[in-house]
Amino acid sequence: MSERSWVHGVHAVRWLLKQHPKRVRVLYVQDSREDARAVELLGLAREAGIDVKRIEGRRLDEWTGAAAHQGIAADVQPSRSWKESELLTHLDQQPKPALLLLLDGVQDPHNLGACLRTANACGVQAVVVPRDRAAGLTPTVRKVAAGAAELVPLVTVTNLARCMRLLKERDIWLIGADAQAERSTFEAELKGAIGIVMGGEGAGLRRLTREACDLLVRLPMHGAVESLNVSVATGMLLYEVLRQRQK
Amino acid sequence: MSERSWVHGVHAVRWLLKQHPKRVRVLYVQDSREDARAVELLGLAREAGIDVKRIEGRRLDEWTGAAAHQGIAADVQPSRSWKESELLTHLDQQPKPALLLLLDGVQDPHNLGACLRTANACGVQAVVVPRDRAAGLTPTVRKVAAGAAELVPLVTVTNLARCMRLLKERDIWLIGADAQAERSTFEAELKGAIGIVMGGEGAGLRRLTREACDLLVRLPMHGAVESLNVSVATGMLLYEVLRQRQK
Repeated sequence: MSERSWVHGVHAVRWLLKQHPKRVRVLYVQDSREDARAVELLGLAREAGIDVKRIEGRRLDEWTGAAAHQGIAADVQPSRSWKESELLTHLDQQPKPALLLLLDGVQDPHNLGACLRTANACGVQAVVVPRDRAAGLTPTVRKVAAGAAELVPLVTVTNLARCMRLLKERDIWLIGADAQAERSTFEAELKGAIGIVMGGEGAGLRRLTREACDLLVRLPMHGAVESLNVSVATGMLLYEVLRQRQK
Repeated sequence: MSERSWVHGVHAVRWLLKQHPKRVRVLYVQDSREDARAVELLGLAREAGIDVKRIEGRRLDEWTGAAAHQGIAADVQPSRSWKESELLTHLDQQPKPALLLLLDGVQDPHNLGACLRTANACGVQAVVVPRDRAAGLTPTVRKVAAGAAELVPLVTVTNLARCMRLLKERDIWLIGADAQAERSTFEAELKGAIGIVMGGEGAGLRRLTREACDLLVRLPMHGAVESLNVSVATGMLLYEVLRQRQK
Protein backbone atom coordinates (compact mmCIF):
# COMPACT_ATOMS: atom_id res chain seq x y z
CA MET A 1 0.00 0.00 0.00
CA SER A 2 2.91 2.29 0.71
CA GLU A 3 3.31 3.50 -2.89
CA ARG A 4 -0.32 4.50 -3.14
CA SER A 5 -1.29 8.05 -2.70
CA TRP A 6 -4.87 8.86 -1.72
CA VAL A 7 -7.28 11.65 -2.29
CA HIS A 8 -10.59 11.19 -0.48
CA GLY A 9 -13.92 12.92 -0.08
CA VAL A 10 -16.51 13.74 -2.73
CA HIS A 11 -15.42 17.30 -3.37
CA ALA A 12 -11.68 16.63 -3.68
CA VAL A 13 -12.14 13.52 -5.84
CA ARG A 14 -14.60 15.32 -8.14
CA TRP A 15 -12.08 18.14 -8.57
CA LEU A 16 -9.37 15.64 -9.48
CA LEU A 17 -11.59 13.70 -11.91
CA LYS A 18 -12.44 16.94 -13.68
CA GLN A 19 -9.07 18.66 -13.61
CA HIS A 20 -6.55 15.83 -13.73
CA PRO A 21 -8.33 12.58 -14.68
CA LYS A 22 -5.08 11.07 -15.95
CA ARG A 23 -3.66 11.14 -12.44
CA VAL A 24 -6.44 8.90 -11.09
CA ARG A 25 -5.46 5.22 -11.23
CA VAL A 26 -8.47 3.69 -9.49
CA LEU A 27 -11.63 5.22 -8.08
CA TYR A 28 -12.86 3.42 -4.97
CA VAL A 29 -16.50 3.85 -3.97
CA GLN A 30 -17.94 2.40 -0.78
CA ASP A 31 -20.41 -0.41 -1.60
CA SER A 32 -23.29 1.31 0.17
CA ARG A 33 -23.07 4.54 -1.84
CA GLU A 34 -25.66 4.71 -4.63
CA ASP A 35 -26.67 8.36 -4.28
CA ALA A 36 -26.56 11.11 -6.90
CA ARG A 37 -23.10 12.36 -5.90
CA ALA A 38 -21.60 8.88 -6.13
CA VAL A 39 -23.32 8.33 -9.49
CA GLU A 40 -21.83 11.60 -10.76
CA LEU A 41 -18.31 10.52 -9.77
CA LEU A 42 -18.81 7.08 -11.31
CA GLY A 43 -19.91 8.80 -14.53
CA LEU A 44 -16.84 11.06 -14.57
CA ALA A 45 -14.57 8.07 -13.99
CA ARG A 46 -16.21 6.07 -16.79
CA GLU A 47 -15.89 8.98 -19.23
CA ALA A 48 -12.18 9.18 -18.46
CA GLY A 49 -11.73 5.41 -18.73
CA ILE A 50 -10.76 5.09 -15.07
CA ASP A 51 -11.05 1.77 -13.29
CA VAL A 52 -13.77 1.81 -10.59
CA LYS A 53 -13.93 -0.55 -7.64
CA ARG A 54 -16.60 -1.06 -5.01
CA ILE A 55 -15.20 -1.52 -1.55
CA GLU A 56 -16.14 -1.86 2.10
CA GLY A 57 -16.02 1.29 4.20
CA ARG A 58 -13.62 -0.17 6.71
CA ARG A 59 -11.01 -0.70 3.99
CA LEU A 60 -11.27 2.98 3.12
CA ASP A 61 -10.91 3.78 6.84
CA GLU A 62 -7.67 1.79 6.86
CA TRP A 63 -6.25 3.34 3.74
CA THR A 64 -7.07 6.93 4.51
CA GLY A 65 -6.27 6.71 8.23
CA ALA A 66 -9.94 6.97 9.27
CA ALA A 67 -10.30 10.37 7.63
CA ALA A 68 -13.69 11.77 6.62
CA HIS A 69 -13.58 9.96 3.27
CA GLN A 70 -17.36 9.93 2.72
CA GLY A 71 -17.06 6.54 1.07
CA ILE A 72 -15.02 7.95 -1.81
CA ALA A 73 -11.27 7.65 -2.41
CA ALA A 74 -9.01 7.86 -5.44
CA ASP A 75 -5.71 6.07 -5.76
CA VAL A 76 -3.67 8.70 -7.57
CA GLN A 77 -0.36 9.12 -9.29
CA PRO A 78 1.64 10.84 -6.56
CA SER A 79 2.36 14.49 -7.29
CA ARG A 80 5.94 15.61 -7.87
CA SER A 81 7.34 18.90 -6.75
CA TRP A 82 7.37 21.76 -9.28
CA LYS A 83 10.06 24.11 -10.55
CA GLU A 84 9.99 27.88 -10.33
CA SER A 85 9.25 28.23 -14.08
CA GLU A 86 6.19 26.00 -13.69
CA LEU A 87 4.96 28.20 -10.85
CA LEU A 88 5.03 31.27 -13.06
CA THR A 89 3.12 29.54 -15.88
CA HIS A 90 0.63 28.17 -13.36
CA LEU A 91 0.00 31.63 -11.91
CA ASP A 92 -0.88 32.96 -15.35
CA GLN A 93 -3.61 30.34 -15.59
CA GLN A 94 -5.08 30.82 -12.12
CA PRO A 95 -8.01 33.04 -11.19
CA LYS A 96 -7.04 36.45 -9.83
CA PRO A 97 -6.11 37.70 -7.29
CA ALA A 98 -3.28 35.25 -6.66
CA LEU A 99 -2.94 33.56 -3.29
CA LEU A 100 0.34 31.83 -2.46
CA LEU A 101 2.03 30.38 0.60
CA LEU A 102 5.82 30.53 1.02
CA LEU A 103 7.39 28.44 3.78
CA ASP A 104 10.89 29.41 4.83
CA GLY A 105 12.36 26.37 6.52
CA VAL A 106 9.47 24.14 7.55
CA GLN A 107 11.52 20.99 7.98
CA ASP A 108 9.20 18.79 10.00
CA PRO A 109 7.15 16.55 7.67
CA HIS A 110 4.09 16.77 9.95
CA ASN A 111 4.20 20.53 9.76
CA LEU A 112 4.67 20.61 5.99
CA GLY A 113 1.77 18.16 5.54
CA ALA A 114 -0.45 20.21 7.83
CA CYS A 115 0.49 23.41 5.95
CA LEU A 116 -0.40 21.82 2.60
CA ARG A 117 -3.80 20.74 3.95
CA THR A 118 -4.49 24.18 5.39
CA ALA A 119 -3.28 25.87 2.20
CA ASN A 120 -5.55 23.82 -0.02
CA ALA A 121 -8.58 24.31 2.23
CA CYS A 122 -8.03 28.08 2.02
CA GLY A 123 -7.71 28.13 -1.76
CA VAL A 124 -3.95 28.70 -1.95
CA GLN A 125 -2.79 28.22 -5.55
CA ALA A 126 0.73 26.97 -4.81
CA VAL A 127 3.08 26.43 -1.87
CA VAL A 128 6.70 27.50 -2.35
CA VAL A 129 9.61 26.09 -0.34
CA PRO A 130 13.40 26.49 -0.62
CA ARG A 131 15.05 23.27 -1.74
CA ASP A 132 17.63 23.08 1.01
CA ARG A 133 15.44 24.05 3.94
CA ALA A 134 12.26 22.07 3.58
CA ALA A 135 10.85 18.59 3.93
CA GLY A 136 10.12 16.96 0.55
CA LEU A 137 6.94 15.12 -0.48
CA THR A 138 7.52 12.12 1.77
CA PRO A 139 4.82 9.55 2.65
CA THR A 140 4.38 11.25 6.05
CA VAL A 141 3.85 14.63 4.39
CA ARG A 142 1.25 13.12 2.04
CA LYS A 143 -0.56 11.35 4.87
CA VAL A 144 -0.74 14.37 7.16
CA ALA A 145 -1.84 16.52 4.22
CA ALA A 146 -4.97 14.30 3.98
CA GLY A 147 -4.94 14.34 0.18
CA ALA A 148 -3.96 17.99 -0.20
CA ALA A 149 -0.39 17.08 -1.24
CA GLU A 150 -1.94 15.79 -4.47
CA LEU A 151 -4.07 18.90 -4.96
CA VAL A 152 -1.94 21.95 -4.26
CA PRO A 153 1.34 22.30 -6.18
CA LEU A 154 4.49 22.26 -4.04
CA VAL A 155 7.13 24.36 -5.75
CA THR A 156 10.77 23.82 -4.80
CA VAL A 157 13.06 26.76 -5.51
CA THR A 158 16.82 27.10 -5.17
CA ASN A 159 16.75 30.63 -3.87
CA LEU A 160 13.66 31.76 -1.99
CA ALA A 161 14.60 35.47 -1.92
CA ARG A 162 15.06 35.43 -5.71
CA CYS A 163 11.68 33.75 -6.19
CA MET A 164 10.14 36.42 -3.94
CA ARG A 165 11.55 39.12 -6.25
CA LEU A 166 9.98 37.39 -9.27
CA LEU A 167 6.63 37.31 -7.50
CA LYS A 168 6.90 40.98 -6.58
CA GLU A 169 7.50 41.81 -10.25
CA ARG A 170 4.08 40.26 -10.83
CA ASP A 171 2.55 42.60 -8.26
CA ILE A 172 2.13 39.92 -5.64
CA TRP A 173 2.26 41.53 -2.19
CA LEU A 174 4.40 39.45 0.18
CA ILE A 175 3.21 39.38 3.80
CA GLY A 176 5.58 37.84 6.34
CA ALA A 177 4.47 36.56 9.74
CA ASP A 178 6.83 37.84 12.43
CA ALA A 179 6.19 37.81 16.17
CA GLN A 180 8.19 41.06 16.52
CA ALA A 181 6.28 42.98 13.83
CA GLU A 182 4.82 46.34 14.81
CA ARG A 183 1.60 45.83 12.94
CA SER A 184 -0.89 43.16 13.99
CA THR A 185 -2.96 41.25 11.44
CA PHE A 186 -5.99 43.09 12.83
CA GLU A 187 -4.62 46.38 11.50
CA ALA A 188 -3.08 45.20 8.22
CA GLU A 189 -4.72 45.50 4.85
CA LEU A 190 -4.33 42.14 3.13
CA LYS A 191 -6.20 42.64 -0.11
CA GLY A 192 -5.13 42.01 -3.69
CA ALA A 193 -2.67 39.39 -4.92
CA ILE A 194 -0.90 37.99 -1.87
CA GLY A 195 1.86 35.62 -0.87
CA ILE A 196 1.88 34.68 2.81
CA VAL A 197 5.42 34.01 4.07
CA MET A 198 5.87 31.82 7.15
CA GLY A 199 9.06 30.97 9.02
CA GLY A 200 10.09 27.52 10.16
CA GLU A 201 9.79 25.93 13.58
CA GLY A 202 11.72 27.82 16.19
CA ALA A 203 13.83 30.10 14.05
CA GLY A 204 11.15 32.06 12.20
CA LEU A 205 11.93 33.97 9.00
CA ARG A 206 15.56 34.28 7.92
CA ARG A 207 16.90 37.79 7.54
CA LEU A 208 16.95 37.76 3.73
CA THR A 209 13.43 36.39 3.61
CA ARG A 210 12.20 38.96 6.11
CA GLU A 211 13.79 41.76 4.13
CA ALA A 212 12.17 40.55 0.91
CA CYS A 213 8.68 40.87 2.42
CA ASP A 214 6.54 43.93 1.64
CA LEU A 215 4.94 43.90 5.06
CA LEU A 216 5.49 42.07 8.34
CA VAL A 217 2.54 41.30 10.60
CA ARG A 218 2.17 39.59 13.94
CA LEU A 219 -0.59 37.27 15.00
CA PRO A 220 -2.40 37.85 18.30
CA MET A 221 -0.77 36.11 21.27
CA HIS A 222 -2.72 36.13 24.49
CA GLY A 223 -1.39 33.16 26.40
CA ALA A 224 1.72 31.99 28.14
CA VAL A 225 3.12 29.96 25.25
CA GLU A 226 4.76 32.26 22.77
CA SER A 227 4.33 30.48 19.52
CA LEU A 228 1.75 28.70 17.47
CA ASN A 229 2.29 25.64 15.36
CA VAL A 230 3.19 26.87 11.87
CA SER A 231 0.11 25.28 10.26
CA VAL A 232 -2.17 26.95 12.82
CA ALA A 233 -0.47 30.32 12.30
CA THR A 234 -0.76 29.81 8.52
CA GLY A 235 -4.47 29.07 8.93
CA MET A 236 -5.05 32.23 10.94
CA LEU A 237 -3.27 34.44 8.44
CA LEU A 238 -5.04 32.86 5.47
CA TYR A 239 -8.34 33.22 7.34
CA GLU A 240 -7.66 36.95 7.65
CA VAL A 241 -6.89 37.22 3.92
CA LEU A 242 -10.14 35.41 3.04
CA ARG A 243 -12.09 37.54 5.51
CA GLN A 244 -10.81 40.75 3.97
CA ARG A 245 -11.44 39.50 0.44
CA GLN A 246 -15.11 38.74 0.98
CA LYS A 247 -15.89 42.17 2.41
CA MET B 1 13.57 11.73 30.87
CA SER B 2 10.15 10.36 30.06
CA GLU B 3 8.53 11.35 33.38
CA ARG B 4 9.65 14.93 33.02
CA SER B 5 7.27 17.49 31.72
CA TRP B 6 8.65 20.67 30.19
CA VAL B 7 7.61 24.23 29.86
CA HIS B 8 10.00 26.37 27.84
CA GLY B 9 10.45 29.93 26.70
CA VAL B 10 10.88 33.06 28.82
CA HIS B 11 7.27 34.13 28.81
CA ALA B 12 5.74 30.76 29.69
CA VAL B 13 8.32 29.97 32.38
CA ARG B 14 7.93 33.42 33.94
CA TRP B 15 4.15 32.90 34.08
CA LEU B 16 4.65 29.54 35.79
CA LEU B 17 7.20 30.87 38.31
CA LYS B 18 4.79 33.64 39.26
CA GLN B 19 1.51 31.73 39.22
CA HIS B 20 2.45 28.21 40.22
CA PRO B 21 6.01 28.19 41.62
CA LYS B 22 5.35 24.98 43.53
CA ARG B 23 4.90 23.11 40.28
CA VAL B 24 8.44 23.94 39.11
CA ARG B 25 10.94 21.25 40.12
CA VAL B 26 14.05 22.60 38.40
CA LEU B 27 14.68 25.72 36.35
CA TYR B 28 17.19 25.15 33.54
CA VAL B 29 18.95 28.17 32.08
CA GLN B 30 21.31 27.94 29.12
CA ASP B 31 24.88 28.69 30.23
CA SER B 32 25.25 31.60 27.81
CA ARG B 33 22.24 33.52 29.12
CA GLU B 34 23.19 36.34 31.50
CA ASP B 35 20.76 38.98 30.29
CA ALA B 36 18.12 40.87 32.27
CA ARG B 37 15.31 38.47 31.44
CA ALA B 38 17.33 35.44 32.54
CA VAL B 39 18.35 37.28 35.73
CA GLU B 40 14.69 38.04 36.48
CA LEU B 41 13.76 34.35 36.13
CA LEU B 42 16.71 33.28 38.29
CA GLY B 43 15.52 35.75 40.93
CA LEU B 44 11.97 34.42 40.85
CA ALA B 45 13.26 30.87 41.18
CA ARG B 46 15.50 31.76 44.11
CA GLU B 47 12.65 33.51 45.93
CA ALA B 48 10.53 30.38 45.56
CA GLY B 49 13.38 28.11 46.63
CA ILE B 50 13.53 26.38 43.27
CA ASP B 51 16.64 24.52 42.20
CA VAL B 52 18.40 26.24 39.26
CA LYS B 53 20.77 24.52 36.85
CA ARG B 54 22.96 25.94 34.10
CA ILE B 55 22.95 23.80 31.00
CA GLU B 56 24.17 23.64 27.40
CA GLY B 57 21.72 24.74 24.72
CA ARG B 58 21.89 21.46 22.87
CA ARG B 59 20.60 19.59 25.93
CA LEU B 60 17.58 21.91 25.96
CA ASP B 61 17.14 21.24 22.24
CA GLU B 62 17.02 17.52 23.00
CA TRP B 63 14.61 17.80 25.88
CA THR B 64 12.16 20.19 24.30
CA GLY B 65 12.31 18.64 20.82
CA ALA B 66 14.22 21.58 19.32
CA ALA B 67 11.44 24.00 20.15
CA ALA B 68 12.02 27.75 20.47
CA HIS B 69 13.09 27.42 24.11
CA GLN B 70 15.13 30.66 24.22
CA GLY B 71 17.59 28.98 26.57
CA ILE B 72 14.98 28.61 29.31
CA ALA B 73 13.10 25.50 30.38
CA ALA B 74 11.34 24.36 33.53
CA ASP B 75 10.97 20.76 34.60
CA VAL B 76 7.48 20.83 36.05
CA GLN B 77 5.12 18.66 38.02
CA PRO B 78 2.90 17.32 35.22
CA SER B 79 -0.60 18.77 35.25
CA ARG B 80 -3.54 16.50 36.02
CA SER B 81 -6.92 16.82 34.41
CA TRP B 82 -9.58 18.80 36.27
CA LYS B 83 -13.16 18.06 37.32
CA GLU B 84 -16.22 20.03 36.29
CA SER B 85 -16.54 21.61 39.75
CA GLU B 86 -12.96 22.90 39.50
CA LEU B 87 -13.78 24.48 36.16
CA LEU B 88 -16.64 26.48 37.66
CA THR B 89 -14.49 27.76 40.56
CA HIS B 90 -11.68 28.58 38.10
CA LEU B 91 -14.05 30.58 35.89
CA ASP B 92 -15.09 32.73 38.87
CA GLN B 93 -11.43 33.69 39.33
CA GLN B 94 -10.61 34.40 35.69
CA PRO B 95 -10.75 37.79 33.96
CA LYS B 96 -13.95 38.46 32.05
CA PRO B 97 -15.20 37.81 29.41
CA ALA B 98 -14.66 34.06 29.64
CA LEU B 99 -13.04 32.19 26.75
CA LEU B 100 -13.31 28.40 26.70
CA LEU B 101 -12.68 25.61 24.23
CA LEU B 102 -14.83 22.46 24.23
CA LEU B 103 -13.63 19.50 22.18
CA ASP B 104 -16.24 16.89 21.35
CA GLY B 105 -14.35 13.73 20.53
CA VAL B 106 -10.79 14.76 19.65
CA GLN B 107 -9.25 11.34 20.13
CA ASP B 108 -5.94 11.70 18.37
CA PRO B 109 -3.22 12.73 20.86
CA HIS B 110 -1.46 14.90 18.25
CA ASN B 111 -4.67 16.81 17.65
CA LEU B 112 -5.42 17.23 21.35
CA GLY B 113 -1.86 18.46 21.97
CA ALA B 114 -2.08 20.88 19.06
CA CYS B 115 -5.46 22.17 20.33
CA LEU B 116 -4.02 22.78 23.82
CA ARG B 117 -1.12 24.73 22.34
CA THR B 118 -3.44 26.82 20.14
CA ALA B 119 -5.86 27.36 23.02
CA ASN B 120 -3.16 28.63 25.34
CA ALA B 121 -1.65 30.92 22.72
CA CYS B 122 -5.10 32.46 22.17
CA GLY B 123 -5.75 33.02 25.88
CA VAL B 124 -8.31 30.24 26.37
CA GLN B 125 -8.95 29.78 30.10
CA ALA B 126 -9.75 26.06 30.05
CA VAL B 127 -10.26 23.22 27.58
CA VAL B 128 -13.19 20.87 28.23
CA VAL B 129 -13.39 17.30 26.92
CA PRO B 130 -15.81 14.43 27.54
CA ARG B 131 -14.17 11.63 29.51
CA ASP B 132 -15.14 8.81 27.18
CA ARG B 133 -14.40 10.52 23.87
CA ALA B 134 -11.05 12.20 24.26
CA ALA B 135 -7.35 11.49 24.50
CA GLY B 136 -6.00 11.97 28.02
CA LEU B 137 -2.86 13.86 29.05
CA THR B 138 -0.43 11.35 27.55
CA PRO B 139 3.27 12.07 26.93
CA THR B 140 2.50 12.61 23.23
CA VAL B 141 -0.19 15.15 24.06
CA ARG B 142 2.21 17.01 26.36
CA LYS B 143 4.99 16.98 23.78
CA VAL B 144 2.86 18.24 20.90
CA ALA B 145 1.34 20.88 23.18
CA ALA B 146 4.86 22.37 23.51
CA GLY B 147 4.38 23.17 27.20
CA ALA B 148 0.77 24.32 26.93
CA ALA B 149 -0.54 21.12 28.53
CA GLU B 150 1.03 22.40 31.77
CA LEU B 151 -0.44 25.87 31.33
CA VAL B 152 -4.06 25.56 30.26
CA PRO B 153 -6.38 23.42 32.43
CA LEU B 154 -7.81 20.35 30.73
CA VAL B 155 -11.22 19.60 32.25
CA THR B 156 -12.64 16.11 31.86
CA VAL B 157 -16.42 15.88 32.19
CA THR B 158 -18.72 12.87 32.25
CA ASN B 159 -21.46 14.49 30.22
CA LEU B 160 -20.49 17.24 27.79
CA ALA B 161 -24.06 18.37 27.05
CA ARG B 162 -24.74 18.76 30.80
CA CYS B 163 -21.53 20.78 31.22
CA MET B 164 -22.64 22.98 28.32
CA ARG B 165 -25.92 23.72 30.13
CA LEU B 166 -23.97 24.73 33.26
CA LEU B 167 -21.87 27.10 31.18
CA LYS B 168 -24.96 28.59 29.54
CA GLU B 169 -26.40 29.29 33.00
CA ARG B 170 -23.31 31.44 33.49
CA ASP B 171 -24.11 33.37 30.32
CA ILE B 172 -21.37 31.78 28.30
CA TRP B 173 -22.37 31.77 24.65
CA LEU B 174 -21.56 28.43 23.00
CA ILE B 175 -20.43 28.61 19.38
CA GLY B 176 -20.16 25.32 17.50
CA ALA B 177 -18.10 24.85 14.34
CA ASP B 178 -20.16 23.02 11.72
CA ALA B 179 -19.34 22.74 8.03
CA GLN B 180 -23.09 22.70 7.23
CA ALA B 181 -23.94 25.83 9.22
CA GLU B 182 -25.82 28.59 7.40
CA ARG B 183 -23.85 31.38 8.94
CA SER B 184 -20.16 31.84 8.22
CA THR B 185 -17.73 33.09 10.85
CA PHE B 186 -17.45 36.27 8.76
CA GLU B 187 -21.09 37.12 9.52
CA ALA B 188 -21.31 35.93 13.12
CA GLU B 189 -21.06 38.15 16.15
CA LEU B 190 -18.66 36.45 18.57
CA LYS B 191 -18.43 38.95 21.40
CA GLY B 192 -18.89 38.47 25.13
CA ALA B 193 -18.21 35.32 27.15
CA ILE B 194 -17.68 32.49 24.70
CA GLY B 195 -17.09 28.76 24.53
CA ILE B 196 -15.90 27.50 21.16
CA VAL B 197 -17.14 23.94 20.48
CA MET B 198 -15.22 21.79 18.00
CA GLY B 199 -16.06 18.31 16.73
CA GLY B 200 -13.66 15.41 16.48
CA GLU B 201 -11.76 14.14 13.47
CA GLY B 202 -14.07 12.96 10.74
CA ALA B 203 -17.38 12.84 12.59
CA GLY B 204 -17.76 16.48 13.66
CA LEU B 205 -20.13 17.49 16.46
CA ARG B 206 -22.48 14.86 17.88
CA ARG B 207 -26.17 15.67 17.66
CA LEU B 208 -26.63 16.43 21.38
CA THR B 209 -23.56 18.65 21.37
CA ARG B 210 -24.73 20.48 18.26
CA GLU B 211 -28.17 21.03 19.78
CA ALA B 212 -26.64 22.41 22.97
CA CYS B 213 -24.82 25.16 21.03
CA ASP B 214 -26.27 28.68 20.91
CA LEU B 215 -24.97 29.26 17.40
CA LEU B 216 -23.39 27.18 14.66
CA VAL B 217 -20.89 28.74 12.30
CA ARG B 218 -18.89 27.47 9.37
CA LEU B 219 -15.31 28.33 8.50
CA PRO B 220 -14.44 29.42 4.97
CA MET B 221 -13.56 26.55 2.63
CA HIS B 222 -12.11 27.51 -0.71
CA GLY B 223 -10.16 24.48 -1.79
CA ALA B 224 -10.70 20.92 -2.89
CA VAL B 225 -10.11 19.31 0.51
CA GLU B 226 -13.20 19.70 2.61
CA SER B 227 -11.87 19.79 6.09
CA LEU B 228 -9.22 21.42 8.18
CA ASN B 229 -7.23 19.84 10.93
CA VAL B 230 -9.13 20.46 14.16
CA SER B 231 -6.30 22.52 15.69
CA VAL B 232 -6.15 24.74 12.60
CA ALA B 233 -9.94 25.20 12.60
CA THR B 234 -9.78 25.96 16.33
CA GLY B 235 -7.09 28.56 15.67
CA MET B 236 -9.16 30.26 12.98
CA LEU B 237 -12.25 30.46 15.16
CA LEU B 238 -10.30 31.74 18.17
CA TYR B 239 -8.60 34.26 15.90
CA GLU B 240 -12.02 35.58 14.89
CA VAL B 241 -13.09 35.86 18.54
CA LEU B 242 -9.92 37.79 19.41
CA ARG B 243 -10.34 40.01 16.35
CA GLN B 244 -13.88 40.93 17.31
CA ARG B 245 -12.89 41.54 20.94
CA GLN B 246 -10.21 44.06 20.14
CA LYS B 247 -12.45 46.19 17.92
